[in-house]
Amino acid sequence: MKLLELVQKINGSFDGDGSIEIHGVAGIREAGPGEVSFVANLRYAADAAATKASAVIVSEDWYTESPAQLIRVKNPDAAFAEAAVLFYTPPPEAGAGVHPSSVVAPDAKLGQGVSIGPQCVIESGAVIGEGTVISAQCYVGFRSEIGAHSFLYPQVSLREFTKIGNRTVIHNGTVIGSDGFGYSVDGDGVRTKIPQIGTVEIGNDVEIGANVTVDRARFGKTKIGNGVKIDNLVQIAHNVIIGDHCVIIAQVAIAGSVHVGNKVIFAGQSGVAGHLCVGDGAVIGAKAAVTKDVPAGAYMIGVPALPAQKFKKTQAGIMLIPKLKERLAALAERVSKLEKQADKIAE
Amino acid sequence: MKLLELVQKINGSFDGDGSIEIHGVAGIREAGPGEVSFVANLRYAADAAATKASAVIVSEDWYTESPAQLIRVKNPDAAFAEAAVLFYTPPPEAGAGVHPSSVVAPDAKLGQGVSIGPQCVIESGAVIGEGTVISAQCYVGFRSEIGAHSFLYPQVSLREFTKIGNRTVIHNGTVIGSDGFGYSVDGDGVRTKIPQIGTVEIGNDVEIGANVTVDRARFGKTKIGNGVKIDNLVQIAHNVIIGDHCVIIAQVAIAGSVHVGNKVIFAGQSGVAGHLCVGDGAVIGAKAAVTKDVPAGAYMIGVPALPAQKFKKTQAGIMLIPKLKERLAALAERVSKLEKQADKIAE
Amino acid sequence: MKLLELVQKINGSFDGDGSIEIHGVAGIREAGPGEVSFVANLRYAADAAATKASAVIVSEDWYTESPAQLIRVKNPDAAFAEAAVLFYTPPPEAGAGVHPSSVVAPDAKLGQGVSIGPQCVIESGAVIGEGTVISAQCYVGFRSEIGAHSFLYPQVSLREFTKIGNRTVIHNGTVIGSDGFGYSVDGDGVRTKIPQIGTVEIGNDVEIGANVTVDRARFGKTKIGNGVKIDNLVQIAHNVIIGDHCVIIAQVAIAGSVHVGNKVIFAGQSGVAGHLCVGDGAVIGAKAAVTKDVPAGAYMIGVPALPAQKFKKTQAGIMLIPKLKERLAALAERVSKLEKQADKIAE
Repeated sequence: MKLLELVQKINGSFDGDGSIEIHGVAGIREAGPGEVSFVANLRYAADAAATKASAVIVSEDWYTESPAQLIRVKNPDAAFAEAAVLFYTPPPEAGAGVHPSSVVAPDAKLGQGVSIGPQCVIESGAVIGEGTVISAQCYVGFRSEIGAHSFLYPQVSLREFTKIGNRTVIHNGTVIGSDGFGYSVDGDGVRTKIPQIGTVEIGNDVEIGANVTVDRARFGKTKIGNGVKIDNLVQIAHNVIIGDHCVIIAQVAIAGSVHVGNKVIFAGQSGVAGHLCVGDGAVIGAKAAVTKDVPAGAYMIGVPALPAQKFKKTQAGIMLIPKLKERLAALAERVSKLEKQADKIAE
Repeated sequence: MKLLELVQKINGSFDGDGSIEIHGVAGIREAGPGEVSFVANLRYAADAAATKASAVIVSEDWYTESPAQLIRVKNPDAAFAEAAVLFYTPPPEAGAGVHPSSVVAPDAKLGQGVSIGPQCVIESGAVIGEGTVISAQCYVGFRSEIGAHSFLYPQVSLREFTKIGNRTVIHNGTVIGSDGFGYSVDGDGVRTKIPQIGTVEIGNDVEIGANVTVDRARFGKTKIGNGVKIDNLVQIAHNVIIGDHCVIIAQVAIAGSVHVGNKVIFAGQSGVAGHLCVGDGAVIGAKAAVTKDVPAGAYMIGVPALPAQKFKKTQAGIMLIPKLKERLAALAERVSKLEKQADKIAE
Repeated sequence: MKLLELVQKINGSFDGDGSIEIHGVAGIREAGPGEVSFVANLRYAADAAATKASAVIVSEDWYTESPAQLIRVKNPDAAFAEAAVLFYTPPPEAGAGVHPSSVVAPDAKLGQGVSIGPQCVIESGAVIGEGTVISAQCYVGFRSEIGAHSFLYPQVSLREFTKIGNRTVIHNGTVIGSDGFGYSVDGDGVRTKIPQIGTVEIGNDVEIGANVTVDRARFGKTKIGNGVKIDNLVQIAHNVIIGDHCVIIAQVAIAGSVHVGNKVIFAGQSGVAGHLCVGDGAVIGAKAAVTKDVPAGAYMIGVPALPAQKFKKTQAGIMLIPKLKERLAALAERVSKLEKQADKIAE
């Protein structure tokens, strides 16, 4: 693609040589001749100055030097993403139909244009909506339902009665609907399983990463709202209710019966203890351990989690201890001196 | 089902209208007409007062108001579970026999009534006990042995020589017998694999959640006792020995060669460093990092883990720092004043 | 095997009865007659004294008593590993060729001696190098490339365009190349997916544990260097760059665009926030939360992570708080006394 064509496609402005051939995109440090890169932050001015890229996408007011031709845009990050897509050849789309190696129950209902990849197992009573793609080696359990235009990557497992919405994407190795972790315990510490006969219901426009686990409810539903985005290796326990447009980053664990509002963000490796409520728009910091209800809009950090300001104060306090110790010793010195003076006066 | 029939089946007492038709169960907030719910805690009295359920299961001495008919029982939680089961239609049982799409080695030994679902791979020398169900897409490695009446959900992997007991349940995506993480390292930091030629042995009545990993021993056995319950995404490293009736909640990691006694509880996201011992009946709190041997019966919290009382004292101490700082400043003030007085006297 | 033969094979020295028959190896506590064990540390002297093993491998200068015959070697740990291998019968090697139950695209290129186990799916354009083994139920995506003499255990997923080096081993359930976790967010908190069109490139002699997730880059490459060893359930996010010979222990999470140098060690359950750099040879302690760039060679502990010495000082400080409180109270007492004296003098 000629550089000029690229500039036009990403709505950039530019006054250089548009005739050179561009064959790809790359990071500012890795890019070479014939490639386009971007910088969105003055931190990378030195990289822009040293780049071997033929062109660099920058903001409209970018002012540092670069040997590359500068393409000016409103949002360099977004424009670069557009440019990257222009040079990307996606893998071929899964065609409609059922691969002959798959085992699909005769009474499973497949909507128009559904694609079932090789070596899937689709159990009796499953319902799969129009245009949905089930990639290789997936398992769709008894009477599970998936909406329209959803996408399961290879090796996803859906247990029985699971419901997945429209335009929802689930990545490889993820398990939806495994039994909740519930046992009754006798006086000897021996545990007996409590039947986990609820289901999981996942909304529209959800994306769930790889090797995630979402447990079915003890009864009723484990529920994930619309537009929720879940990263890899996350654990969602039985009877958790998650509102709309939440973001749950890698290795988070949400314990049983937690209720999460809308637009809540859980940073990586954080956790929430059972039966708590996390209010709308709350942010749970990385590695935080939530042990109490979280009010709407709160920003919680730490183990156990505290409101961010309190946490920072606490941390500052801890850092102060050596100084407190010194001050205390100095003061003790002064008191000793005073005591000696007092002794003298008393004499 | 008529309400009266339900009441009788869960051994409740009740003096209302037993003739109404009940079609299901639901949580106290979600339940509507024709549904039964329960409350087990006065915290939910307001929910009981506002419920739309036709009937609510309560304890014998429950006294708050509700528009629903009250069914009184000894243990509302357990009675509700019984009620839930009455309305639950489970998926059809896996029939005995081998699905034709599965690849089963001719010398694998399958007990009476064993069920092998579609697209399983059962390697040479595997032994599967009477009545055990291997669901779709499982992998049972060379000479692995599974006892009687156990249940593997879809996409479970058992590596070679793994032994699983009777009535043990393993959920989707779990891997048993992967290599332990063991390398020798040379002076340049280059690592060479130490052969991991031991096995994994799992007892009877164990339940293991989804996407769990249990590594084989370097030599000898990684061992999980009877009645142990393991939640999702847990890591059990090589040569770990776990006693009977332990409970291991989601995302716990137990490092290599740790010995765990009986009836130990690991709360979510906790971890234990290698080669430590955790005594019988110990409780490891959520997110705790165990870095020393834990005596029997201890309750450990924190990173690094401390006995709970010490941890709480430490936390209280941290919270005290701002006050200590204030007190120290006030005292310094008083000392300054005394010093001035002393100076005056000296003059 | 006669004991003498064993002693010779592991290069030991020994002056006992070499004629006895040895049939296996076991840990010092579990070993019985006819078995060989080892002790490498005086901590286990009591076990050596109580063992039922026929022979015990010890260091050349071992001096405590044991009823077993002692085999003296330079490195007991390594010699025992050698002995263990002598008694180990590995599972049969996967033969070359494609199992008929697998679905292999006609244009996939398989090198000499490649083994494709049962029920694999190998997509169009995949390239698999000489002698590489793809075990049962693996998925190799569109145009993915695997080098020579690599080994995929069952149920591994490689998404499209993934590149894996030579002699690299990947354990069951691991997912390489799932989409990075990247969304743009509008004013209402609604997220739109940013295309993840980069790839993953993994070097030579890498080992990756079970149920690990490695995300593809947004653009460009997520990169794992040569000789890196990764334990189970680890998360490597999009655009992470990892140098050579790093060690990443179970349940670590490395967030997006982190750059990791060579020979870095991440202990279990640690995490690194996005866009940070971790220098060569750094060690990140178990459960540590790295929130700032880490210089080469640093040893970081804590949540948030601090240099180890600073962390230990901070911990010591926290433990000091009760004492500081006491000292402060004692000092206040002394000041009160002085004040009383001062008052008297003033009178």
